[in-house]
Amino acid sequence: MLKIVILGTGNLAKHLHDAFTKAKNVNVVQVVGRNTQALHQFCDKSEVTDNFKAIVDADVYIIAVKDDVIGKVSKFVANKKGVVAHTSGAMPMAVVHSTKKGVFYPLQTFTKGKVVDFSTIPICIEASDTESLKVLELLARSISENVHPIDSEQRKKLHLAAVFVNNFTNYLYGVAEEICLQEGLSFNLLKPLILETAEKIKTMPPKKAQTGPARRNDRQSMQGHLGLLKNEKHITLYKLLSRAIIQAHEEEL
Amino acid sequence: MLKIVILGTGNLAKHLHDAFTKAKNVNVVQVVGRNTQALHQFCDKSEVTDNFKAIVDADVYIIAVKDDVIGKVSKFVANKKGVVAHTSGAMPMAVVHSTKKGVFYPLQTFTKGKVVDFSTIPICIEASDTESLKVLELLARSISENVHPIDSEQRKKLHLAAVFVNNFTNYLYGVAEEICLQEGLSFNLLKPLILETAEKIKTMPPKKAQTGPARRNDRQSMQGHLGLLKNEKHITLYKLLSRAIIQAHEEEL
Repeated sequence: MLKIVILGTGNLAKHLHDAFTKAKNVNVVQVVGRNTQALHQFCDKSEVTDNFKAIVDADVYIIAVKDDVIGKVSKFVANKKGVVAHTSGAMPMAVVHSTKKGVFYPLQTFTKGKVVDFSTIPICIEASDTESLKVLELLARSISENVHPIDSEQRKKLHLAAVFVNNFTNYLYGVAEEICLQEGLSFNLLKPLILETAEKIKTMPPKKAQTGPARRNDRQSMQGHLGLLKNEKHITLYKLLSRAIIQAHEEEL
Repeated sequence: MLKIVILGTGNLAKHLHDAFTKAKNVNVVQVVGRNTQALHQFCDKSEVTDNFKAIVDADVYIIAVKDDVIGKVSKFVANKKGVVAHTSGAMPMAVVHSTKKGVFYPLQTFTKGKVVDFSTIPICIEASDTESLKVLELLARSISENVHPIDSEQRKKLHLAAVFVNNFTNYLYGVAEEICLQEGLSFNLLKPLILETAEKIKTMPPKKAQTGPARRNDRQSMQGHLGLLKNEKHITLYKLLSRAIIQAHEEEL
């Protein structure tokens, strides 16, 4: 039985707590956070405290707080015997103050209130030593079948790639919604297309799946589209993305 | 029973043929195309011909060919009594040469060989007259529960919005794949995130779902990311999208 403490009470802390409390070989012995209000949601399954000096002993301390306070929070458990791991995609393992440290990064976007199936979520782990890595792997495997040892340098790149497929893609969804609303059209019309575009990557590499006016270098259609756009930012974006698609295709020929 | 003829033998023609031949009140009496090889795939369910002068009588002629030859192909059925409809998102209804004309635009991306559930796909219809619209609506409802009368102007905007959520989004997937491969990481790691990002739009407007360094205006993380990118085009894209996200958020405040 792995005893773990979660430090943090936000969205990720909640999702991890939900997953760990369902896992067979994990016992979330404590949740620690400053926000006493937020601590309430954990108290039926775990002991909770807002006193960072009252943290109990555990095999793993999972730090699920904002990137810029990971170092600070880790100091409260720096002298504990357990492995101290943060959960950030962007931060190096080194920000953790502890001898036995690591990273436990679930590569997914978490929505408040939406239940997540952790079993398929890639969990990227890293540790300061072999033994700690084994502990983190055991913990990761308790909730996911998709566990990968990934070092800090790789994780930074992965996080960057994630920004493209998550943050930037979502921004494009927003642009499309704006175009629809301006025309009195429901954004619902685009939802099946959005889902199918994402589904496609399961069976086809993105470069092979590329279609559209830019992929065909269909200048007339692209000019037509540019004439319809009113927002200067959207025009620049349309041009840049179209040029990139045209070039990427030319490079492949 | 609606009798229809499909003109065209490509990807969309095949998907529509599959859907219509399963529909209760539709009879695909003929498929017409120049490509005799491609015609083979239709011949177990419908009569096929490569002779555009041998087109039979039908209630609806569905033109599923490339945008730039719609007008030309429509001339072969211009004197028929049935409604002649093209299937393009980008072309106005007016390109069809016929008195009773229309548009039958399924708003989805179709992959060769991948079965599609038409029942949820939005079908955007338009027609030159009320009677023709009724016929097209009947036809659309035979395969989908998601049918919308949408005029040529609106459809152009919708098609433009579709470019953002399909073509451009897919390009971003490709950028992410490139970043992964450069680092020796599997693109599979990002697939659950891609799917969840798309799923999110079902329950949350994109603007509300926006997260990431740009949304938080976290300059340090963004600088870090820019330092990792090697491809000039990706750098420009990262800056532009990040600036757009920062601005969009500021405008909302």
